[in-house]
Amino acid sequence: MAKSKNRKSALTENEGIKPPESLSSVSAKAIKNKRKKQPSADALVKGILNGDITSLSRAITLVESTNSTHTKKANDIITACLPHANNSIRVGITGVPGVGKSTFIEALGIHLTNQYKKVAVLAVDPSSSLSHGSILGDKTRMEDLVKAPNAFIRPSASGDSLGGVARKTRETIILCEAAGFDTILIETVGVGQSETAVHSMVDFFLLLKLAGAGDELQGIKRGIIEMADAIVINKADGENVKAAKSAKLEFNRALHLYPEKESGWSPKTKLCSALHNKGISEIWEMIETYISETKNTHYFHYHRTEQNKFWLLQTIEERLKSNFYDKPEIRNELKKQIDLIEEGKTTPFAAAEYLLNL
Amino acid sequence: MAKSKNRKSALTENEGIKPPESLSSVSAKAIKNKRKKQPSADALVKGILNGDITSLSRAITLVESTNSTHTKKANDIITACLPHANNSIRVGITGVPGVGKSTFIEALGIHLTNQYKKVAVLAVDPSSSLSHGSILGDKTRMEDLVKAPNAFIRPSASGDSLGGVARKTRETIILCEAAGFDTILIETVGVGQSETAVHSMVDFFLLLKLAGAGDELQGIKRGIIEMADAIVINKADGENVKAAKSAKLEFNRALHLYPEKESGWSPKTKLCSALHNKGISEIWEMIETYISETKNTHYFHYHRTEQNKFWLLQTIEERLKSNFYDKPEIRNELKKQIDLIEEGKTTPFAAAEYLLNL
Repeated sequence: MAKSKNRKSALTENEGIKPPESLSSVSAKAIKNKRKKQPSADALVKGILNGDITSLSRAITLVESTNSTHTKKANDIITACLPHANNSIRVGITGVPGVGKSTFIEALGIHLTNQYKKVAVLAVDPSSSLSHGSILGDKTRMEDLVKAPNAFIRPSASGDSLGGVARKTRETIILCEAAGFDTILIETVGVGQSETAVHSMVDFFLLLKLAGAGDELQGIKRGIIEMADAIVINKADGENVKAAKSAKLEFNRALHLYPEKESGWSPKTKLCSALHNKGISEIWEMIETYISETKNTHYFHYHRTEQNKFWLLQTIEERLKSNFYDKPEIRNELKKQIDLIEEGKTTPFAAAEYLLNL
Repeated sequence: MAKSKNRKSALTENEGIKPPESLSSVSAKAIKNKRKKQPSADALVKGILNGDITSLSRAITLVESTNSTHTKKANDIITACLPHANNSIRVGITGVPGVGKSTFIEALGIHLTNQYKKVAVLAVDPSSSLSHGSILGDKTRMEDLVKAPNAFIRPSASGDSLGGVARKTRETIILCEAAGFDTILIETVGVGQSETAVHSMVDFFLLLKLAGAGDELQGIKRGIIEMADAIVINKADGENVKAAKSAKLEFNRALHLYPEKESGWSPKTKLCSALHNKGISEIWEMIETYISETKNTHYFHYHRTEQNKFWLLQTIEERLKSNFYDKPEIRNELKKQIDLIEEGKTTPFAAAEYLLNL
């Protein structure tokens, strides 16, 4: 027994070595204090309205946070910024990977900052939380625009649902506008419904394409052409010019197949070479023409109001659905009812009735 | 005072004349008894499975009723019929008024009944309760098909929502199939979302068009072409033949613009003259080819199951929405929140949050 006292049990832990005090306790406290002292909502609003980028970035981080205290604070900031928002041109830009979206946005952004415009570049990419930012994630892809003093680039918010990512982006637009950005470029890729989401938050929707071999229109995603206010064929340079011109013709014909837009605007096709900075100013002129025409007809304001109503109803309906389907008993029973339907033992309507009455 | 007793008050009513006893009380009782004795659900199911048209019609009337006792009885009948349903080809037919839908359906129906097929003709037209049956309402429009012993024609159910009309039509399909109808033709007009509703309850979707002057594709409803498994140009006779052929070419090109269908089927364009019974048998052969090809690939069954799941979720979501929006307090507050959004005093997301927490 006396012996065993000296023996160590297998479960005994050695005391270990104390970590060296690499930070003085004084400076550690200072850092902790600094971290705790997040600026107040009021201070951030003041900063944003003064065009302070640090305040803007911090407010966007609050918008993107899932912490409920942050959400509360973000809502206060947004409400305070709302009266100062809305004074911008919002442009959506989509296209498959490889079409040169980053190069195009950079060329357009630099063209605009050279005209002393303030340009914010945002992204909607619900897949980015999985792929770790396939678009705008790597800021070095827009090296020159990043350096422009009037440009602000923010990668896509992460989130597990498109609805969530879209909400965060819409709120970020408000903050950017309040901070004085007069041009908002929103990039998206053709993932799921993300194009529809971006289309419903912008004034002008631009589809970027490449001239390829063969039939240009085969395999184009359903509905994209009808959303586009312009189709821009990128990389129209060197040996590509001929193919790009013939693609332009074919897209023109395709656009012709759709009924007139509510805006009264006939969608245009344009060629450009973002890499060689060709065609960029013409594209911006086209967008400005669109904006002034739709402002004249009051469609511009009407359209933004309709978009807001759409987002209101959309948000309500998404929440009603998730409140219903997230209940564990509904999940279980839904599966069972689907099985019964497949076996021909109940109808979709009887099954729905049953689930709603649970 | 004595005088006033003899005078009649202005409010006094004369006794009136008794109605003549035109019916003997015995036969009146017999009629009443007969009216009361509606056949039981079991009796109707028996009748339906024996192919009795009177039982089928009565059961459909129960399906269409808004009386809750009738709904209960209808549900029992449908459940009993379900194991005997599903053995049919379901074809949706759409086209603008004047394209000759009735003539086409009559020609196709007669072609099929001549081959000893049993053909049920239904309609989805949510506007019919207002317009008193713009399609199929007037059975005399299909004079010859009405007389065919193997044909059954039923006008569109009335209802104040497309969802309601669509549900009733889907349940009617089940009853018709249980009654031995092997071909279900469902007519619709391009009103609101009714084409989408019909598309999601049929195996094959046919768009009827006319060759017109000028650009055939201008003004065609969004999304219709991508739903179509075939575009049939009707009235391709006499002087119209040339224009019809060129329309066929143009539609072919348009179909070519869409990505491949999940079914693997390449949509076809066909010419016909329903009035002169030309092209009808070729169109039916095409539909049979589609059915046998999709049965081979198992897409046919997969597609029906997916349609059922779609209707299950669709019904649940419609009901969740109507339960929410029909509350008087939500109606009031929704209007107020929309006003606040328009005035830039709240965001769609904050407004949604507020309404959901009411």
